[in-house]
Amino acid sequence: MRTTRALICTSDSHTVKGGIGPRESLTLGHEAVGVVHAVGDEVRDFRPGDRVLAGAITPDWGDRATQNGFPSQSGGPLGGFKFANSKDGVFADYFHVNDADANLAKIPDTVSDEAAVYCADMLSTGFMGAEKGMIPIGGTVAVLALGPVGLMAVAGARLCGAGLVIGVESVPARQKLARSYGADEIVDFTSENVDERILELTRCQGVDTAIEALGADPTFQTAVRITKPGGTVSNIGYFGEGEFVRIPRLEWGVGMADKTIATGLCPGGRLRMERLLRLLETQRVDPSPMTTHEFSFDDMERAFEVSDKKLEDVVKVLITF
Amino acid sequence: MRTTRALICTSDSHTVKGGIGPRESLTLGHEAVGVVHAVGDEVRDFRPGDRVLAGAITPDWGDRATQNGFPSQSGGPLGGFKFANSKDGVFADYFHVNDADANLAKIPDTVSDEAAVYCADMLSTGFMGAEKGMIPIGGTVAVLALGPVGLMAVAGARLCGAGLVIGVESVPARQKLARSYGADEIVDFTSENVDERILELTRCQGVDTAIEALGADPTFQTAVRITKPGGTVSNIGYFGEGEFVRIPRLEWGVGMADKTIATGLCPGGRLRMERLLRLLETQRVDPSPMTTHEFSFDDMERAFEVSDKKLEDVVKVLITF
Amino acid sequence: MRTTRALICTSDSHTVKGGIGPRESLTLGHEAVGVVHAVGDEVRDFRPGDRVLAGAITPDWGDRATQNGFPSQSGGPLGGFKFANSKDGVFADYFHVNDADANLAKIPDTVSDEAAVYCADMLSTGFMGAEKGMIPIGGTVAVLALGPVGLMAVAGARLCGAGLVIGVESVPARQKLARSYGADEIVDFTSENVDERILELTRCQGVDTAIEALGADPTFQTAVRITKPGGTVSNIGYFGEGEFVRIPRLEWGVGMADKTIATGLCPGGRLRMERLLRLLETQRVDPSPMTTHEFSFDDMERAFEVSDKKLEDVVKVLITF
Amino acid sequence: MRTTRALICTSDSHTVKGGIGPRESLTLGHEAVGVVHAVGDEVRDFRPGDRVLAGAITPDWGDRATQNGFPSQSGGPLGGFKFANSKDGVFADYFHVNDADANLAKIPDTVSDEAAVYCADMLSTGFMGAEKGMIPIGGTVAVLALGPVGLMAVAGARLCGAGLVIGVESVPARQKLARSYGADEIVDFTSENVDERILELTRCQGVDTAIEALGADPTFQTAVRITKPGGTVSNIGYFGEGEFVRIPRLEWGVGMADKTIATGLCPGGRLRMERLLRLLETQRVDPSPMTTHEFSFDDMERAFEVSDKKLEDVVKVLITF
Repeated sequence: MRTTRALICTSDSHTVKGGIGPRESLTLGHEAVGVVHAVGDEVRDFRPGDRVLAGAITPDWGDRATQNGFPSQSGGPLGGFKFANSKDGVFADYFHVNDADANLAKIPDTVSDEAAVYCADMLSTGFMGAEKGMIPIGGTVAVLALGPVGLMAVAGARLCGAGLVIGVESVPARQKLARSYGADEIVDFTSENVDERILELTRCQGVDTAIEALGADPTFQTAVRITKPGGTVSNIGYFGEGEFVRIPRLEWGVGMADKTIATGLCPGGRLRMERLLRLLETQRVDPSPMTTHEFSFDDMERAFEVSDKKLEDVVKVLITF
Repeated sequence: MRTTRALICTSDSHTVKGGIGPRESLTLGHEAVGVVHAVGDEVRDFRPGDRVLAGAITPDWGDRATQNGFPSQSGGPLGGFKFANSKDGVFADYFHVNDADANLAKIPDTVSDEAAVYCADMLSTGFMGAEKGMIPIGGTVAVLALGPVGLMAVAGARLCGAGLVIGVESVPARQKLARSYGADEIVDFTSENVDERILELTRCQGVDTAIEALGADPTFQTAVRITKPGGTVSNIGYFGEGEFVRIPRLEWGVGMADKTIATGLCPGGRLRMERLLRLLETQRVDPSPMTTHEFSFDDMERAFEVSDKKLEDVVKVLITF
Repeated sequence: MRTTRALICTSDSHTVKGGIGPRESLTLGHEAVGVVHAVGDEVRDFRPGDRVLAGAITPDWGDRATQNGFPSQSGGPLGGFKFANSKDGVFADYFHVNDADANLAKIPDTVSDEAAVYCADMLSTGFMGAEKGMIPIGGTVAVLALGPVGLMAVAGARLCGAGLVIGVESVPARQKLARSYGADEIVDFTSENVDERILELTRCQGVDTAIEALGADPTFQTAVRITKPGGTVSNIGYFGEGEFVRIPRLEWGVGMADKTIATGLCPGGRLRMERLLRLLETQRVDPSPMTTHEFSFDDMERAFEVSDKKLEDVVKVLITF
Repeated sequence: MRTTRALICTSDSHTVKGGIGPRESLTLGHEAVGVVHAVGDEVRDFRPGDRVLAGAITPDWGDRATQNGFPSQSGGPLGGFKFANSKDGVFADYFHVNDADANLAKIPDTVSDEAAVYCADMLSTGFMGAEKGMIPIGGTVAVLALGPVGLMAVAGARLCGAGLVIGVESVPARQKLARSYGADEIVDFTSENVDERILELTRCQGVDTAIEALGADPTFQTAVRITKPGGTVSNIGYFGEGEFVRIPRLEWGVGMADKTIATGLCPGGRLRMERLLRLLETQRVDPSPMTTHEFSFDDMERAFEVSDKKLEDVVKVLITF
């Protein structure tokens, strides 16, 4: 593929810092759209010139983990996450996609590259948080941390039928975006007691689903505490450090309160990407307002710095090629 | 109900020690069978003289938690667990059961009291460990700790289609019982490296389902580690102490390896009890060999001591009335 | 309850015509809101004067069918459907609700009686069509027949994350309402070939979910045909006549195409009603535009005629008391 | 693969008779084991000489239907069923398997070819009937028709935790086999009223799960009738003729009794085959007693006649090469 647009992800920072082990001599980046440059002999459905999206996760579809229902885990834990882990990533003029017929999707004419590129990871991961959260229709959901994945978890919770979506976040610009994506209430942890406020908003029941979108031990603990018995903690955070993630024993009902902890890695694949693109095509959600910064590929160093250090109220940085 | 047989449970010890908070002036015990002594005006299906089983958990069936699919959590976290928590328990000549039509089951003629009494908690909890474990037919299961609940998790894993059941336990008598309930392999953690041995037995895949049947932080960590990506950690342990239960971050795939952590509290209710009794009636499993000790109600002090201190290779203590 | 608002349902006509067997000496009607007039001794959470909604289905919560997860089937097939079947219905100045704590819900201040009354059956049934349809996020859905339940199935499909919702209907007023509830495309079976058009709209894949909202053999057959292998036919139609409902053998993949046929009866219960009311409170959907006619209870005869004979482009008839 | 053992299937007869459309110039047969003769360049895990099992269904693993969770439907309805449909089948000295790494499994040393060959279709399909039947632990199951797939549904129901398994069959030899595979009760439809007898055996509740293992309209109707509200009709029959399969309207609860109708096509794939082989290895089930006849490949004509015409109390015909 010839890259046209890419996004910088927090997990790029994690990768650089060794969050899932050392990585060397690999191009970074896993969120991109572009144009098919050349295809292998066995590719049937794509041709040079096609405007396409590649999932951030590009599984091996014949693998046993895939046959078990978990393509993102093909080839070992997180093995579907190939870009920047087992093959060169997308921050390059050209990049290669394994099994194009299974891992690419054509971008509909009415969907821009700038919007489509968010499907690769942000929509897929954020929505997964809602899907794995088993939200009952009309149920209550809290999303903890409203970075781009958390914002898409808010949008996903709405798409999955939540009757009340509570965002937990302190940055005003992110709070505002969250409201535009469907958060009914915002709790600012710098000025409010999160547990008390959420109990109040749920009439002392706790939420049906708590989505952890940060990847930090204290946030995870909050998620367990605010979830009602029978509810689900849905983790989409990438825990980048520490030896343990800790479950608070008593609030977990000493292990017997029917609080399920679900997790996963961004789903990839052509079908997933086509479905996400359809949601853009039929205007269910517009991710482009999350783009707070835009740099050309030549300014990649600065772009990465802005994203990594969270400068200038950054939400998401778009790279143009 | 007039009590005829009861069992002492490890959770009785937890309750005495304050594992789920202080308890006072309440009779202990939650596993019993007996004979209906008297019924309230609204009871339709039971009459004095009926030989019956009461579930250890006797939910409020109209409660919102029940309507949400979690009767054991009716009336608050673990609220369905009334005996010895919010009403007097079964270690008495007579005890009262709320909502008899919904919480009792008649014992089939061919099933003895001594066997039926195990359905109240041991079968219901142990089997739940297998059910919540989402075992694929022909899948691999490890059961960590083979006390009576763990033994019934072994039997439950077999009933749920496991192709390979591995028990982890060091006590020879329990190992032997586990084999009789269907464990294909036993790993002795005092002489073997559990992680290595389980990887070897699963051809380096890890298990589909790890059932934690002890309620201890190190065992829980083992469960997370030995579960394959996409697998399930099914907790049926009662965590009686400590502030936290800890998930090992890296082996949990930094929160992205699709390792679900499921939990629950012993299911109760007439339908559940009827189904468990049917499994005894059709001879799928025989719990009675777990009875290592038998005392009359007059020797309750000694009986409790044997169970609490795990004396004399005790597995389960039966009380006769 | 003292009735304040009620709705006439197509199933009232079915009941009158003996669709589910003969009924005699029973007041008709099952969709109503009102004010608590008096409570029994055991009612804890409601008091005279409370503005409340009763579910159309008022299950026995301790019943084995309920314990099995199907409260609408408590007391026998469709047994939760008591109004006008086993007890007097709601078309009266006052009506009685069994187990108030479990079957009533308070109406939030910001929700009108005129909107809340739609939760009793229309939202609950229509949304169930979407929920049982197992719609994948971004998936494709066809709703066959856009009466009030079909319209709420459209709204439900949107709430459940559908990426493309296709309504099949010929009446212009209903088509228009469907678009307002989120239908992306409308197929008019009087001027288009439904099968061909739906294949075209789904790029020859068929839909993920077909919701049958009429209860007619030909419509059911269409639903089976247009569903993709691996998809779900979700039936919410009430089949009022004929000995059989027929599955087209070849398009059902000779019984092997993984096309699941799901059905159900309107879910009731306090939790369900509270969740539906929350969706009105947080403005996810507004059912009131479906009210095309309004009559006082004194004009019930005429009101029933309009609904039964589908006069004057009726969608739903509201009765005021 | 060089074929060593194969089985003749009823669906071979259906295929010959055009049950799923005309087939020409294709070798018949889809159940076989053998030895790897040669491998393509991209095959990593198998080598000439390996003793292996091929699933009857050999999906395209990158296909959208597979990504949707239904590999058997890859490439169109029933598209994973390639042998004798879109490529030559296994009734030959040698046959070719697409995507060996994903569709083959090595046969454990302790498992004979004669037993392993049953995994290809009989165990996979029969067990699927139980798996899709959503059998609750201790639940009740009826299996309608006890040919080899029905017999394996009986075994599957036991493996999935059924508390009572009722087989419906008139042939004594099959009744006897059913008992050996775990049927608790047998109903002979030639001498008993099936509906009445099953109601009696389930204490007037109906079964939780009815498995249709014949593929005939009257049997399917029986399955719907005897299933309790909230239960599942799990179809594994191949409906070879007729325009429609008919659902009895009233007993289906006029479309509202929560009776789900599930279906599917034999699951294939390496992981599935490995799991089934593990069940043979750990001696959960032994399919070999179903082999009533054995012919060498040279006597194929006679072998097919015996199977097709159901001569000599045939259950299953094994072909040796």
